Amino acid sequence: MTELKNDRFLRALLREPVDVTPVWMMRQAGRYLPEYRASRAKAGDFMSLCKNPDLACEVTLQPLERFELDAAILFSDILTIPDAMGLGLYFETGEGPRFKKVVRTLADVESLHQPVIKDDLDYVVNAVSVIRRELNGRVPLIGFSGSPWTLATYMVEGGSSKDFREAKKMMFCEPQTMHLLLDKLATCVIDYLNAQIDAGAQAVQIFDTWGGALSDRDYQEFSLSYMQKIVAGLKRESEGRRVPVILFTKNGGQWLESIAAAGADAVGLDWTTDIGLARQRIGSKVALQGNMDPTMLYATPERIRQEVETILGRYGKGSGHVFNLGHGITPEVDPENARVFIDAVHELSAKYHN
Amino acid sequence: MTELKNDRFLRALLREPVDVTPVWMMRQAGRYLPEYRASRAKAGDFMSLCKNPDLACEVTLQPLERFELDAAILFSDILTIPDAMGLGLYFETGEGPRFKKVVRTLADVESLHQPVIKDDLDYVVNAVSVIRRELNGRVPLIGFSGSPWTLATYMVEGGSSKDFREAKKMMFCEPQTMHLLLDKLATCVIDYLNAQIDAGAQAVQIFDTWGGALSDRDYQEFSLSYMQKIVAGLKRESEGRRVPVILFTKNGGQWLESIAAAGADAVGLDWTTDIGLARQRIGSKVALQGNMDPTMLYATPERIRQEVETILGRYGKGSGHVFNLGHGITPEVDPENARVFIDAVHELSAKYHN
Repeated sequence: MTELKNDRFLRALLREPVDVTPVWMMRQAGRYLPEYRASRAKAGDFMSLCKNPDLACEVTLQPLERFELDAAILFSDILTIPDAMGLGLYFETGEGPRFKKVVRTLADVESLHQPVIKDDLDYVVNAVSVIRRELNGRVPLIGFSGSPWTLATYMVEGGSSKDFREAKKMMFCEPQTMHLLLDKLATCVIDYLNAQIDAGAQAVQIFDTWGGALSDRDYQEFSLSYMQKIVAGLKRESEGRRVPVILFTKNGGQWLESIAAAGADAVGLDWTTDIGLARQRIGSKVALQGNMDPTMLYATPERIRQEVETILGRYGKGSGHVFNLGHGITPEVDPENARVFIDAVHELSAKYHN
Repeated sequence: MTELKNDRFLRALLREPVDVTPVWMMRQAGRYLPEYRASRAKAGDFMSLCKNPDLACEVTLQPLERFELDAAILFSDILTIPDAMGLGLYFETGEGPRFKKVVRTLADVESLHQPVIKDDLDYVVNAVSVIRRELNGRVPLIGFSGSPWTLATYMVEGGSSKDFREAKKMMFCEPQTMHLLLDKLATCVIDYLNAQIDAGAQAVQIFDTWGGALSDRDYQEFSLSYMQKIVAGLKRESEGRRVPVILFTKNGGQWLESIAAAGADAVGLDWTTDIGLARQRIGSKVALQGNMDPTMLYATPERIRQEVETILGRYGKGSGHVFNLGHGITPEVDPENARVFIDAVHELSAKYHN
């Protein structure tokens, strides 16, 4: 493999010294970029874009052509696993993801297909290989998966949901059915992320988008414990280098101590948490990733720079911080504001490193 | 005024001994009740229901006819103040609240009408008087208002919003304009709640539904500081008895210490916070209200009772807990499950009190 030219991102995740704070953006390959919209139009629908490794590579690299990002992230969807389990993922315009089949009973869970990565999810693994080759050592490549709980919500609801009524009903009244589903998902996520690591992913992130909709007790039992199981099952070294794992639970700020104890190298923060307090709470155990409000990208360039300065100041001196947004970049953002953000992180962070 | 027959709710808010834990439900007068839907149909639209004191009284009392609730809450909308400021509130079916005018500039804020309660919001004050009379001392009556930040989001966005883009843009780029708006709102909320107290409200709650969408820093500056100002301006005694104030910030679990320091008697918790940990953090300063996941009301009666038992056990022995849901009851809940919930709180909590 080609030597890595910029390893700030990997070093910061392991709390090793860096020259400046690394930065990437969740959903950096996305609809706010006109070139992404063109690739998507070329592909037809969203899943055709995900399932074509060359197109997935094309959109993964687009933000890197524009901005001085310190990491690339595999372009894919979080619902590839439920799709591979036989639920029939599709997207209705303006409706978000939908499944042809839903999972509501023990029999539904028992009859799920347990995916074999090389047969059912080879398109993702192939995309990782192609992207890694095309990156040519420029920056590290992040692989990712949804968390079991987050995937389960979509599978039980049949798509997006406001209050996760059906998923919670299963969790409340048939916890053993929910646990079986989560266990099947965790097993698959381990295989899936290890296959991404084998294909060249140099770090992996688990997105727990909906863990924050749970009570404290249910979060520990139905979301965090399965992420912990996944972390324990991952290959942590590849190509002679540690493969860091990042756990990101949106609205998980109350639970940072237990998230930090789950075995990952880094914890993602949404924008509601003060990163200085988070560092006091868990910064001696893990690196932190985050956490500017994505809505700040609608502000003026001056205001964006000011916010970057504030967050850098709150984190303080030394390594262990990967700058990011607190959630994905939204479609209506002006790409020039994303540039202001990224450049500000590099420019303003030098003084916090020696 | 008639003597209060059941004062558990007021006693628990002041951490005074009670026989059993009192309980009420946010949005207890609402669409899950067929009799509410009938009253609403009779009124025509939603605002006509709010603006008619007799109908507002009718729906306020409906859940008390069915269930052994320990408090009534004024039936009204949180957006009465922006409406009185001249924005023209209306409801589009399936769309939620909308305003004819939006507030986007300093000139917009400066030209807002500063409501005079007895002229512009007399229908709310009259509803409080009628309800209080009709309650006839059965249980205490709660008055309420939205928080300045929560009201401001609707006024700037022109209605509901997913990411509060316009409101945050104003906050980020023209903070002095946002502060002027929040200050005008806080002044009005003080008058509004004091008028409710004068008319017979025996406790008041401030609903900060959207404070949890802010960063830690912005929450302190743009939401909590204005709630603190309101609390400082409220009449805290009426009819020879203390009028307790409850602050409820949804998704505010990270900030309990600062919320508890704002001067209120009680802090509302959504269901993501463990009430036992919350009591350790702030229970020596304030009472706690909450916090069962409202989605639990879709579970079986047995499971609902089990959850009530768990939450009571987490809070532990002694007063200072008003049981509630962690957010409003949703329209599709079976009223019989609400009954199971309310009865379980009374039945299962006796052993925690002497």
